[in-house]
Amino acid sequence: MPRAWITAFLRTPLHLNKVIARSSCSLIPGEPTAPCLKTEIPGPNSKRLFKEMNCIQQAGTVQFFANYDKSLGNYIVDADENVILDLYMQIATMPLGYNHPAMLEVFCDKHNLHALVNRPALGVYPSEDWPRKLRDVLLNVSPRLPHVTTMMCGACSNENAFKQCFMAYRNRERCPPGSFTEEEKTSCMTNCPPGSPDLTILSFQNAFHGRTLATLSATHSKAIHKLDMVAFKWPMARFPQYCYPLDEFKCKNSEEDEKCLAQVEDILCQYKKGNRPVAGIIIEPIQSEGGNNEASPCFFQKLQKLAKQYGAGLIIDEVQTGCGASGKMWCHEHFNLECPPDIVTFAKKMQISGYFHTEEMTAKETYRIFNTWMGDPGKVLLLEAILKVIQKDNLLCLVQKTGQKLKCGLLELEREFCFLLDSTRGIGTLLAVNCTTPQLRDEVLKCLKQKGIQCGGSGTRSIRLRPALILQEQHADIFLDRFRSVLQCIK
Amino acid sequence: MPRAWITAFLRTPLHLNKVIARSSCSLIPGEPTAPCLKTEIPGPNSKRLFKEMNCIQQAGTVQFFANYDKSLGNYIVDADENVILDLYMQIATMPLGYNHPAMLEVFCDKHNLHALVNRPALGVYPSEDWPRKLRDVLLNVSPRLPHVTTMMCGACSNENAFKQCFMAYRNRERCPPGSFTEEEKTSCMTNCPPGSPDLTILSFQNAFHGRTLATLSATHSKAIHKLDMVAFKWPMARFPQYCYPLDEFKCKNSEEDEKCLAQVEDILCQYKKGNRPVAGIIIEPIQSEGGNNEASPCFFQKLQKLAKQYGAGLIIDEVQTGCGASGKMWCHEHFNLECPPDIVTFAKKMQISGYFHTEEMTAKETYRIFNTWMGDPGKVLLLEAILKVIQKDNLLCLVQKTGQKLKCGLLELEREFCFLLDSTRGIGTLLAVNCTTPQLRDEVLKCLKQKGIQCGGSGTRSIRLRPALILQEQHADIFLDRFRSVLQCIK
Repeated sequence: MPRAWITAFLRTPLHLNKVIARSSCSLIPGEPTAPCLKTEIPGPNSKRLFKEMNCIQQAGTVQFFANYDKSLGNYIVDADENVILDLYMQIATMPLGYNHPAMLEVFCDKHNLHALVNRPALGVYPSEDWPRKLRDVLLNVSPRLPHVTTMMCGACSNENAFKQCFMAYRNRERCPPGSFTEEEKTSCMTNCPPGSPDLTILSFQNAFHGRTLATLSATHSKAIHKLDMVAFKWPMARFPQYCYPLDEFKCKNSEEDEKCLAQVEDILCQYKKGNRPVAGIIIEPIQSEGGNNEASPCFFQKLQKLAKQYGAGLIIDEVQTGCGASGKMWCHEHFNLECPPDIVTFAKKMQISGYFHTEEMTAKETYRIFNTWMGDPGKVLLLEAILKVIQKDNLLCLVQKTGQKLKCGLLELEREFCFLLDSTRGIGTLLAVNCTTPQLRDEVLKCLKQKGIQCGGSGTRSIRLRPALILQEQHADIFLDRFRSVLQCIK
Repeated sequence: MPRAWITAFLRTPLHLNKVIARSSCSLIPGEPTAPCLKTEIPGPNSKRLFKEMNCIQQAGTVQFFANYDKSLGNYIVDADENVILDLYMQIATMPLGYNHPAMLEVFCDKHNLHALVNRPALGVYPSEDWPRKLRDVLLNVSPRLPHVTTMMCGACSNENAFKQCFMAYRNRERCPPGSFTEEEKTSCMTNCPPGSPDLTILSFQNAFHGRTLATLSATHSKAIHKLDMVAFKWPMARFPQYCYPLDEFKCKNSEEDEKCLAQVEDILCQYKKGNRPVAGIIIEPIQSEGGNNEASPCFFQKLQKLAKQYGAGLIIDEVQTGCGASGKMWCHEHFNLECPPDIVTFAKKMQISGYFHTEEMTAKETYRIFNTWMGDPGKVLLLEAILKVIQKDNLLCLVQKTGQKLKCGLLELEREFCFLLDSTRGIGTLLAVNCTTPQLRDEVLKCLKQKGIQCGGSGTRSIRLRPALILQEQHADIFLDRFRSVLQCIK
């Protein structure tokens, strides 16, 4: 059934005639056609609210306060009525932008409302339709993995992925699998081996996997995240650092892959010898927080082979990259892996968090992977609505198209301002470009915001785009246009 | 404004005339008046659904599938139309039972619906009314602590409580506070000291604080939770094990307190000497998963003194005990502590998770306590409705009254069946009674379920009650009546 709002009326503001003339109509009826600022950002209302909030908790990270009644589509409206084009979308969590009609409808359905307010302990008293939701909503978009376990957030999903790797590793050493010795049962109660074994998780330089203490031990993006925090002494390998454009540096980048893989193999070998074997390897398809760093399909293919060779589970962390932002449902699907990873974790745009997994990574005994809530049915209902819109509106195609437009535009800007920008990179709309210095990056982000464009930072000097899947060409045009004018001012 | 449903019509089933004759009317209009079974539990529909779910994930913990459209008040209806009186309430998470009118109303409000579907990154782009919600909803019920930080689940709240303790401990050693050395900044990136220090968290035997790897290191209730899991080598002290009734064993139990406190002091001292100082002590006011174990106000008062003396933060984990179930908002308020604990964590009945904290336990720098979502505004809106009902219907008083009734009834049964039951204990409705053996406990729980009563287990041989705050005398009567008949059959 075609929805009226898909063919919504295109309003054209005077000052954007040139840009909008080229654009097709918005997917969201009534969406603003351009940013519109009334004050600087943050404005006086945001500044006042900031003071209130900072008395209650550390609020120094707040950029502005928002009005979620007025925000719509790709535009967020702040507490001072500034209308901002949002290419960062709540740290990559909003697939359909703000107030999408399909999202607003979900809880008008009484059955769904009951599922929301009667939130069960899903591992003990799930609702009658929970198995069907797991199958028809979640497994329906699984990257070829037959099992799924839901959790509350990305960090918890990665924590449980680690646990699955530890169990699988130890189970392979047991004869028969699942037989625990009395010594194991007693020693684990006081955190001692053999019950609490000295297994490790291998992660990569600049990786980000969460901020609980175990996922933080696998995170290596910024010191301020890790200072003073007790950590597991787990190993870290170099993540490839490529030269751009990729076409020009094929040989050099391929050597970089080999160097990093050699280090991975060395660690796997040394840690096995040292009786601290690597039970799991965790990696992002594109390092997001750590600098939007890509690695090649070849790198991932060889990494998977090494993981198998040394008996380590391969965990692909798709918390930020999953749910369509790469133009495929899962970013690692661009890598043509021989077989699926052992575990793929998700959260953010998926609303519900959790992980897809192989049969081997499924707990054999009860209560080993368990907690009170085991996720939240309300979030799966939102995901169900999101996936329907993705399909109906062919949003994966739109992401490819808008992503291409954005990437070409960034490359053009890079050529035009080669003394300010470099290394445009990414897949789909998971894009970034480097500024020559961290100071310049911060300045550009600030200027963009004062022109009504919200982007994110990443690594030390990257500008990161993480728009909604409903970002269209006209939005890309506005962004590129304003980015150019910012760079012109700086120049 | 008095609601019509408070004076709802009392329906009286024939076979319960004797019991119901004494009861007042239900707080929930249309609530069933008694359990009503059509099949054994789990019935054929639950069994069929179990098979479906077990293909997708480890589902061995599922007791039955529920119909959340039909469940109401204290009664859960399963997939086979069995009506069960629920004294366990989704592992203690449902303060107002099922489908409470006030909960169903929350998202009929459009502003609230927008807050639900436009879920922001609360640390960066909170809504205009977020500071007010933090203050008027959360701080309004704070146990004398001026700050609150929200999270996604109980385990994440405890993880971040640990982080606060580590930061506070290290900050006290720094001169000036907040000045990080270059060595710290570099070493933390590879999980090495001094940036990643060797601080510890002290927890107690039989404690349960979560299943992420750090909280699991502070959890010591069952081996199956911990086997094969990598753990921090943190210390554990004995939690008091009392003899019951408390009045009869005052002297012995007081000696038990002193023994346990001596061990705590010994650990604090030894770990400081061993350069692995204890930065935080985490404890439940009543150990829930580990056996519904109580400790005296005196024990907690002295524990707080020791924590202060050795510079460790005192974390009271109120995830299961908070939000009114003890007859006070927070269970530790029964202990008359000289000053508030450093941190009080919450989740479950509160819907939103997080922790209240002192000024010292507030991060001074940005991005040290941070994650994408930092909680969920939709859950705070539900909590707001819950707290209004708690106040309006005077539910803390009801908990005291129903709790007293339940406890007296359990003590009576204990006298009547002294060869089957012992050690009735607890505060408010956070109650438990022991069976003489684990096998008997499991048998009793099974029989109770076949009589339409859902309770929980705890420790090795305890029956645990964790009902909603709306449990009334008539529900207590039904439970006690059926418990007696189960015990009579077993006898």
